[in-house]
Amino acid sequence: MITIATDFGTPYPAAMKGVLLQRTDARLVDVAHDFPRQDVRAAAFWLREVLPYFPPATHLVVVDPGVGTDRDTLVLRADEHVLVGPDNGVLVPPARRLAGTTELEAYGIDERAVSHDGRSGPASNTFHGRDVFAPAAAAVHGTSRDSLESVAALEATTSYVDLELPSAAVESDESRAAGDVLAIDDFGNVVTNVPGDFLEGRSRLVANGEVVPVGETFASVSIGTRLATVGSHGYVELDVNQGRGDDAFGLDTGDRVILEGDEREE
Amino acid sequence: MITIATDFGTPYPAAMKGVLLQRTDARLVDVAHDFPRQDVRAAAFWLREVLPYFPPATHLVVVDPGVGTDRDTLVLRADEHVLVGPDNGVLVPPARRLAGTTELEAYGIDERAVSHDGRSGPASNTFHGRDVFAPAAAAVHGTSRDSLESVAALEATTSYVDLELPSAAVESDESRAAGDVLAIDDFGNVVTNVPGDFLEGRSRLVANGEVVPVGETFASVSIGTRLATVGSHGYVELDVNQGRGDDAFGLDTGDRVILEGDEREE
Amino acid sequence: MITIATDFGTPYPAAMKGVLLQRTDARLVDVAHDFPRQDVRAAAFWLREVLPYFPPATHLVVVDPGVGTDRDTLVLRADEHVLVGPDNGVLVPPARRLAGTTELEAYGIDERAVSHDGRSGPASNTFHGRDVFAPAAAAVHGTSRDSLESVAALEATTSYVDLELPSAAVESDESRAAGDVLAIDDFGNVVTNVPGDFLEGRSRLVANGEVVPVGETFASVSIGTRLATVGSHGYVELDVNQGRGDDAFGLDTGDRVILEGDEREE
Repeated sequence: MITIATDFGTPYPAAMKGVLLQRTDARLVDVAHDFPRQDVRAAAFWLREVLPYFPPATHLVVVDPGVGTDRDTLVLRADEHVLVGPDNGVLVPPARRLAGTTELEAYGIDERAVSHDGRSGPASNTFHGRDVFAPAAAAVHGTSRDSLESVAALEATTSYVDLELPSAAVESDESRAAGDVLAIDDFGNVVTNVPGDFLEGRSRLVANGEVVPVGETFASVSIGTRLATVGSHGYVELDVNQGRGDDAFGLDTGDRVILEGDEREE
Repeated sequence: MITIATDFGTPYPAAMKGVLLQRTDARLVDVAHDFPRQDVRAAAFWLREVLPYFPPATHLVVVDPGVGTDRDTLVLRADEHVLVGPDNGVLVPPARRLAGTTELEAYGIDERAVSHDGRSGPASNTFHGRDVFAPAAAAVHGTSRDSLESVAALEATTSYVDLELPSAAVESDESRAAGDVLAIDDFGNVVTNVPGDFLEGRSRLVANGEVVPVGETFASVSIGTRLATVGSHGYVELDVNQGRGDDAFGLDTGDRVILEGDEREE
Repeated sequence: MITIATDFGTPYPAAMKGVLLQRTDARLVDVAHDFPRQDVRAAAFWLREVLPYFPPATHLVVVDPGVGTDRDTLVLRADEHVLVGPDNGVLVPPARRLAGTTELEAYGIDERAVSHDGRSGPASNTFHGRDVFAPAAAAVHGTSRDSLESVAALEATTSYVDLELPSAAVESDESRAAGDVLAIDDFGNVVTNVPGDFLEGRSRLVANGEVVPVGETFASVSIGTRLATVGSHGYVELDVNQGRGDDAFGLDTGDRVILEGDEREE
């Protein structure tokens, strides 16, 4: 199984699928092709949250603002999963989550040994998803995850671009949390990095200066009303029941969020 | 085969696919993930029109404004098809169409027996597509459709939320039809619930007070011109050749449509 | 393997997949369903660029402004590939590219022999993707590509609608190229039909009167800056690093592009 995630829209991912299907008969599963453009951090967040639901697979990821530069190709083995993509940090947060307590293994790859077969000319400088990463994913896919080192084109490395998603700072008495908007989902829900525990025992909080009710479900408030809830990722989300939280709270990816809690009511 | 239909956009459906692929090796087919948000009726319409083209399959449907409330999970057996989703009516119109003259069988499901494996924490209150419905679909998928009752987690029921899509009222002399806009498709075609027969033998009609030519094909009028035609669902559609009918007629899903016919010309 | 490309959005392609899966167990791969609406030329361009990356397959294409008219169904055999769709030219540029030096074979098809099984009424006048082209693709898919003539519904023809994508006129001293915008991709990159060679040995050029730097990669200019580069199709593209070239250059599909080169610096 090879999953594919990009910020490409269409039809570029189809060319990548063609390349993969020339070389493997793997099942292909789309994760998303509309990640925010060239936003390495947003893609890393979504992949960290979604990929753990998959069985062992090769995960091909292309969000790559540095395409065509000397930015390397990276292969990460995380427990029974393998991730392939640009060495710009995007693979690291999902790989850490997938690895759990096991050690992450990193490999560089000899691009010329796996890449584009020249069918339509030399590898491009603008579409490494098709010309470099898809061939690389096909090359590692056929291999047992236990023996990645047997892939001639791979070479173990300890040097790669790291990326850590920001953590929220929660005061020790849990009266206040200073966090960030990690992502806005397609419903407009504002996903923060404040752990969901912050809402425990609270019926309301102050988010960036405004009082907001806390609810266990969207339907705990009336339609069109704002709420704070624990989202499906385990973090505090700022949402609107059947509406857009990003519009209602005026928040976008990367913005700061200050949550202040009333005293616990427990 | 498991089909998947949601109003989720991306990448949430990918998490559902991961859950399914952890538990089955079924072929997965996307129906749509951009149904109008939380619009149970629109989803029910589209599924009623699209699912009958599929061979026997499990159909996983999540359009679920009541996620996290005590709204139940419903499993409907309709002839050789099985539908799984929230008990809010969305499954009923497609299931009735699929069942044809056979009897619909309904089951409740013990969510704890099939649900989320705890891999990433307890089931969420906001993403039952991943944590409840996908596991439920995987549980019924492996089973022969003749023996759903052998699935331990299922219990036959006769009580579920019904939903009937509105019908148009056509006067007995067929001079007038009062109907509703069931859906707008991605081309902007306005799909009504007035049976296509209403156009038979007519070269024009009056739609909400305006005279519109009747055509058998889009190309029967010039580009940019409005027409009424029999759409691919068998209903009267109000369209524009190579343009958007919803804009031209000022109509949206749920709006009333009054069609008045000239005398038959046959 | 059957690839599917349309301008349908959702959920109409799902109905086509249902029809295909009733009749074959082929692997289905989406190429795109958001091609510019009813734009035969744009679809032909993208398919010409993307389909050559696929292994031998049946390619089902529906961009069909003439749906329901007496426009025929066309089947083209191009080397080991077979293309199925409306006879309006859309299949021809990709088929020529796939055929390479081999000869293109064209067939008409008896629509009644392969079409819609009447499950939900007669074939529609507005959705031939579901009622005619998908059944036709399923009919040819099962067949060896060497023996298309054995498909009873097919009849060899030499008469079909041709389509040639426009070529750029490059002056013999390569000081000037007069071309066209073939497509805008989802990033906003402006894909012209001027061969990439035009940029060789140049560090800047004049595009429609404005001086633009030439770069080998997007990252060769600072973020938000315009550049001309050789895109992944081998043509000159007018782009913005991490921005939209179409907006910055004020260009859309079909527009004229005049490129004037400084003297070669080699």
